[in-house]
Amino acid sequence: MANKNHTHAMVAFQGAHYAFSEIAAKRYFGEDIRILPCRAFEDVFNAVEAQEARFGIIPIENSLTGSIHRNYDLLLEHDLTIVGEVFLRIEQQLIANPGVRLEDIRVIYSHPQALEQCRLFLTSLKDVDAVASYDTAGSVQMIHEKKMLQAAAIASRLAAQDYQMQILKEEIEDIPENFTRFLIVSKNAVPLGEPNKTSVVFSMKNIPGALFKSLSVFALRDIDLLKIESRPLRGKPWAYIFYLDFVGDMRQEHCRNAIRHLEEITTFLKVLGSYESGNGQGK
Amino acid sequence: MANKNHTHAMVAFQGAHYAFSEIAAKRYFGEDIRILPCRAFEDVFNAVEAQEARFGIIPIENSLTGSIHRNYDLLLEHDLTIVGEVFLRIEQQLIANPGVRLEDIRVIYSHPQALEQCRLFLTSLKDVDAVASYDTAGSVQMIHEKKMLQAAAIASRLAAQDYQMQILKEEIEDIPENFTRFLIVSKNAVPLGEPNKTSVVFSMKNIPGALFKSLSVFALRDIDLLKIESRPLRGKPWAYIFYLDFVGDMRQEHCRNAIRHLEEITTFLKVLGSYESGNGQGK
Repeated sequence: MANKNHTHAMVAFQGAHYAFSEIAAKRYFGEDIRILPCRAFEDVFNAVEAQEARFGIIPIENSLTGSIHRNYDLLLEHDLTIVGEVFLRIEQQLIANPGVRLEDIRVIYSHPQALEQCRLFLTSLKDVDAVASYDTAGSVQMIHEKKMLQAAAIASRLAAQDYQMQILKEEIEDIPENFTRFLIVSKNAVPLGEPNKTSVVFSMKNIPGALFKSLSVFALRDIDLLKIESRPLRGKPWAYIFYLDFVGDMRQEHCRNAIRHLEEITTFLKVLGSYESGNGQGK
Repeated sequence: MANKNHTHAMVAFQGAHYAFSEIAAKRYFGEDIRILPCRAFEDVFNAVEAQEARFGIIPIENSLTGSIHRNYDLLLEHDLTIVGEVFLRIEQQLIANPGVRLEDIRVIYSHPQALEQCRLFLTSLKDVDAVASYDTAGSVQMIHEKKMLQAAAIASRLAAQDYQMQILKEEIEDIPENFTRFLIVSKNAVPLGEPNKTSVVFSMKNIPGALFKSLSVFALRDIDLLKIESRPLRGKPWAYIFYLDFVGDMRQEHCRNAIRHLEEITTFLKVLGSYESGNGQGK
């Protein structure tokens, strides 16, 4: 872990105390960091840009439900650098006030991502509404504070403990292989640790085979691609922006050459950062 | 339009009467179709599989907010064929009960996609919660039936008219270039009209440069790619399934050759359908 110099750093994240982002931040930096919970992902980016927080941590991808597209969009809109990466296994718990039974529940609150990770469990229930809230841990806080006895929340074990709530059912995610990949962003472009992975975003010239040609700049240099993600280009329907992760560090010459080559066929290109890969399951 | 023989067909869609999917279906097939509103996207697929409806229509992509991933996943899980495509410009209206003023509103209901398309408008409001509901038109119905005077819904003009509601603010989408691409699915694999576009889904062997190689089967045959979308492979964290749209029809030899070539480097491949491209803005 690449955290030794930042054990007391202020780290911003989306969600309430004991959100999964906070747990990931502590996994990465240690338990002694100071935390800045934010209401929206955008607030995380703003807090780091305004230097209210040294780092921000954002979920970028879940192994069950896919990319968190809002954060891809925000990486483009804001001028922060990816300096680190961390993976966390996500165990979702069904949490209710003490004494409440499963058959009492009529509504279950959680972040849309968490609801999606528990789709099979939720569809197995009869006459229960799943309601999207802005946060997992915040949903626990709400049903606790409002003493809601026909409601439950989906959140982390720590969130349940924090509010002295009951775990009605453990590990309700669809399958146990449920991991989230988080990125650490900073205004300061110095990577934490030994970078071996780079993320870029680009849009292509309108030329035949543009996508093939843009991937060939990596293939021709034996650079492995780890992920490709497309997002719509605003104001230009059915044109796309591509986010690409590849193996390598921008301090390496073959990576710089590939990016220079890529610039020849793109209308826009931004290197989001080189960083040390987290120890993701299977990655 | 490729609809002449199906003017009275039963068409399933997600949402309540006057959902955008219904408007798109009528744009495609004409006003005389019979409609089967469904609660969830999955119900649309099930209704078509059970032949309760001849066709299903599903939104697959929006030019502002990107792909509707749940429908990509469902295309894979179910055994239906894409037989047509239609594009619709989406104008979102802020709708309330008669007499309600904008400053009375404390909560705004709509489908998450619609809320996302109106992000700029929503963030410009103070002390107003945006709450995700299962449907745009259904949200109008709810605030109408419950006579909610501090609530508004985001939905189509037709939904407002249907419930004799007031349009508080017109065209609140972030930018006017807001189009949704819908697919027509059927159990019967006969395309409507003249197919010129094909969609496939595949997962790749774990070989170096696999993605580059899979795109090269099209580039080597001068086949243009229109879209690539990646989705997580369930149970195998950080491996992906790719959805690809390309120009051509599986009745053409060079397309069949490309797919045969692609099969050499994939572990799984499914042709979702060849169909006539809709007249999308810029597509």
